[in-house]
Amino acid sequence: MNRELVIGLDLGGTNIKGILLDNCGNIYAKTDVATQAKDGPEAVVRRMTGMVSDLEEAAKKAGSKAIGIGVGIPGLPDQQSGLVVFAPNLGWKNVPILKLLTATVTLPVFLENDANVAALGEQWLGAGRGSANMVMITIGTGIGGGLILNGTLFNGASGSAGEIGHTVINPEGPLCSCGRRGCMETYTSATAMIRMAQEAIKQGNKTCLASKDKIEALDIVVAARDGDKIAAGIVNSAAYYLGVGAANIINLLSPDTIVIGGGVSGAGDILFKPLERSIRQWSLEAAYEAVKVVPAQLGNTAGCVGAARLVLQQTFG
Amino acid sequence: MNRELVIGLDLGGTNIKGILLDNCGNIYAKTDVATQAKDGPEAVVRRMTGMVSDLEEAAKKAGSKAIGIGVGIPGLPDQQSGLVVFAPNLGWKNVPILKLLTATVTLPVFLENDANVAALGEQWLGAGRGSANMVMITIGTGIGGGLILNGTLFNGASGSAGEIGHTVINPEGPLCSCGRRGCMETYTSATAMIRMAQEAIKQGNKTCLASKDKIEALDIVVAARDGDKIAAGIVNSAAYYLGVGAANIINLLSPDTIVIGGGVSGAGDILFKPLERSIRQWSLEAAYEAVKVVPAQLGNTAGCVGAARLVLQQTFG
Repeated sequence: MNRELVIGLDLGGTNIKGILLDNCGNIYAKTDVATQAKDGPEAVVRRMTGMVSDLEEAAKKAGSKAIGIGVGIPGLPDQQSGLVVFAPNLGWKNVPILKLLTATVTLPVFLENDANVAALGEQWLGAGRGSANMVMITIGTGIGGGLILNGTLFNGASGSAGEIGHTVINPEGPLCSCGRRGCMETYTSATAMIRMAQEAIKQGNKTCLASKDKIEALDIVVAARDGDKIAAGIVNSAAYYLGVGAANIINLLSPDTIVIGGGVSGAGDILFKPLERSIRQWSLEAAYEAVKVVPAQLGNTAGCVGAARLVLQQTFG
Repeated sequence: MNRELVIGLDLGGTNIKGILLDNCGNIYAKTDVATQAKDGPEAVVRRMTGMVSDLEEAAKKAGSKAIGIGVGIPGLPDQQSGLVVFAPNLGWKNVPILKLLTATVTLPVFLENDANVAALGEQWLGAGRGSANMVMITIGTGIGGGLILNGTLFNGASGSAGEIGHTVINPEGPLCSCGRRGCMETYTSATAMIRMAQEAIKQGNKTCLASKDKIEALDIVVAARDGDKIAAGIVNSAAYYLGVGAANIINLLSPDTIVIGGGVSGAGDILFKPLERSIRQWSLEAAYEAVKVVPAQLGNTAGCVGAARLVLQQTFG
């Protein structure tokens, strides 16, 4: 048995998650720590290298050693220059993460966007197992996306491919955080669902959501499942527009699998039934027949699993 | 000099075009013939095999022989079953083209959608030369699309990837020929431009287009260039929505090159200036910085050139 061990880190706005895996996907160690981005990039990188030490120690205990480290970045990394070009949730711009990491760490380090590594993780060990052409759509504060094309991660000329949330589905639609109008995420993100709930409450509609101090997207899904009509309307609307955006991707790329991730992806039929209807309505037949739409399976470990996978793909092709 | 010769055929609704090329892109022979699809598939295939004989003869004269035939199909071919699943312009459904062709032809035959081979042609010898990630958008009766990703043609799980014209840019938009609403081609195809001109004339607007018996998209572009305000408005609107659709592709795939093809792609600044503005408005910065938008260079030979290229890619990888 000649198993390669790899380390995957998922640098998030709230937590840094780490994992030690072998090339068959067996987990040897898992760890996480608060990011505390307010302390600045050097402090965050120190936490990451501390995590790497722990995982290398775990590898040693398993009688082996890791061959490389993959890192998922919540923004746009540039492997060539070793920079995190930007990462809004961390407040980072042009942070030389590779230089900071390799001051301590001797293993090769591979950087990739967090939504992309999550897609890679789901394709390796999750809902997209065995898929050659998989698109992952993650419903969160925004809408994240990752593309696996011909079996490997596709990130395009700028490294930023997969920005599904900012494909426009109505140029006269609501204003988006990116400054444009009618981006898919203005209709279907957790933020959009919460905004719709708040508007409905302000307009005096009767809904159980009105009793909450702070509404989460998951609350809306749960209320919809419990028969709350306002909540059901919001979930239906989000699912419908998610379907329009997903169908655009289906018509353009004809993937075999679309994986829906994020907190609300476990909602079941209440989300997936109207989503399926909308996708059917907006997709071309041949591409529709070839695709299945499934919820993600790895939850918030998809990112570090995929970051580890990245090491294997970059090292062995 | 060990040059491989390949045959490319482009089966169109009006003409069948053929070309004999070597692996360096040197042209040895070109030919075309009327399709006359009304005579039925067998007659059309006879015209194709006649063309192949002529091109094989030309290869012999050059002291060599062709190694394979690529065929661009105006619809959805399926290489595995050897069928043209559908080709609306020919009135074909499930036509066993591979069986019909190989009754006469002994060379290996490779089938591909016509927009896809046109993209491959432009990437090999045209406006996308040297591009690794190129998207071709062809403005015609509809909007055709072809994707070159990581240097090779991408056609997805169903073989139908690249249906850019049927990505939706407004789910409440005009009715499309596909039965859906607000597809990109309802705003930006030649058909859409002609429809807008006819509506403007019907509403009594003053335009030089009113004097024409039959308006072509190229007439509208020429009139716009000559200062006709109605025509200029139509070209601006088509360019704007073409930009919205192109930006969606830029945000999703981050290509290095977008090639605009079709009859009006030679229009120059009158089309490309507003298109460029719209793309800038609707694209994410990183992806926008990495892409150039250029007119096609091969005109209506792109298809047979790309069909020939397909043989080389399928044979030698």
